[in-house]
Amino acid sequence: MVRPRNPLNIGAAARAMANFGFHEMVAVSPYSPVWQETRSAVGAEEIVISARAVESLVEAIGDASVVVGTTAGSRRTLDRELIPLPDFPTWLQQRKVGGRVAVLFGSEKTGLSNEHLSYCHTLVRIPTAVGCPSMNLGQAVAVCGYELARAGLVPTHPLRLSVHQSDLASVQSLYHLFDRSARVLEQVGYLKPKSRRATLIKLRRLMLDLELTNHDARILGGILAQVEWKIGQGNSE
Amino acid sequence: MVRPRNPLNIGAAARAMANFGFHEMVAVSPYSPVWQETRSAVGAEEIVISARAVESLVEAIGDASVVVGTTAGSRRTLDRELIPLPDFPTWLQQRKVGGRVAVLFGSEKTGLSNEHLSYCHTLVRIPTAVGCPSMNLGQAVAVCGYELARAGLVPTHPLRLSVHQSDLASVQSLYHLFDRSARVLEQVGYLKPKSRRATLIKLRRLMLDLELTNHDARILGGILAQVEWKIGQGNSE
Repeated sequence: MVRPRNPLNIGAAARAMANFGFHEMVAVSPYSPVWQETRSAVGAEEIVISARAVESLVEAIGDASVVVGTTAGSRRTLDRELIPLPDFPTWLQQRKVGGRVAVLFGSEKTGLSNEHLSYCHTLVRIPTAVGCPSMNLGQAVAVCGYELARAGLVPTHPLRLSVHQSDLASVQSLYHLFDRSARVLEQVGYLKPKSRRATLIKLRRLMLDLELTNHDARILGGILAQVEWKIGQGNSE
Repeated sequence: MVRPRNPLNIGAAARAMANFGFHEMVAVSPYSPVWQETRSAVGAEEIVISARAVESLVEAIGDASVVVGTTAGSRRTLDRELIPLPDFPTWLQQRKVGGRVAVLFGSEKTGLSNEHLSYCHTLVRIPTAVGCPSMNLGQAVAVCGYELARAGLVPTHPLRLSVHQSDLASVQSLYHLFDRSARVLEQVGYLKPKSRRATLIKLRRLMLDLELTNHDARILGGILAQVEWKIGQGNSE
């Protein structure tokens, strides 16, 4: 959950997770008083107690192989594929994901920002009514948990997801690669002040779409290191 | 919703209904202050404003052709068929229900009582984890709404349900029939004080299971009226 604002919602989300067999909750920069106020929801004491609060989204999802954003599908996200929630389990199974899957929920007021969405491999939309698209946070977690459990995709059934383990690079190593690429682009003057932010968001998305394996990531990392070295040499000459 | 206790939950349930295209909410004997306190949930103003509060379950579901109870599937209901929620749309479609379907949710604390359950044609269970089976009321409504909308079974798609209209007797007319039967059983001395309540619950269930048409109900009603008349004659002789 990114920047959750309401302690009741955090408790409700924890309970919904417990209802459907999910255990690990991470809050990204929750408002501090909110986080302090969060009380254990019925049957979800363990989840709330073991929940982590972290400062950045990257910290929260670093060890995931796939990051999925949830959205009501407002205009700003229309340039990206939106998977309807009922099709999400199939999408996940077809990707043969070996590692962990992170599902992101935005704040009650604003949802996930474009910046947050750029960290996502794909976006999932709960098919809500046109007249009332935006769901309550705890209820959105409940519905997503239900759909995943319905397809048997809960952490207590790890086999379902890991039968066809691929060697997909972890998000963490992709971020290292991304940071390195951004540095190189900076050094070669590719990033213009005005479009810098948008360019980096596009680059991150591109990098996720490539579905790099760990092997790919190592090779690309090596290339980038070499480029950096060369540029550094040129500068010092 | 039968005896809802928490105004936040009522508002949350209304919002979930709006999210998935449902409109009509009825509260059966809500605690009065609770009902007064209920505030419109985001996007669900119409539902909350038009929601009815009634005294008895029969008033709430009188015009439905099918009544479905939701339950966490605790021991007391194990003697009845429990349909897992993912299978519920298929069950509904196979019955070729022509009229309205009422879905009952019990109070947060106790769920639906055996008395309430005896009014249900069938029971639906949300497949929750063994360690945390009981769902928050608003989240249970959200998940049920999602599953029904997922199958296209929302009131805005009435055709899906009414393509194969059957002439199934309304719950209201079944209750009239049931009251008449109970009166006759009383008069012939079939009901013993000790087992009276349990017998009537069984009778109600049996009557629902028969899936009587309106035609059947009229014939049976006529027979019962005749029996009553005869008994009355015997008494006055």
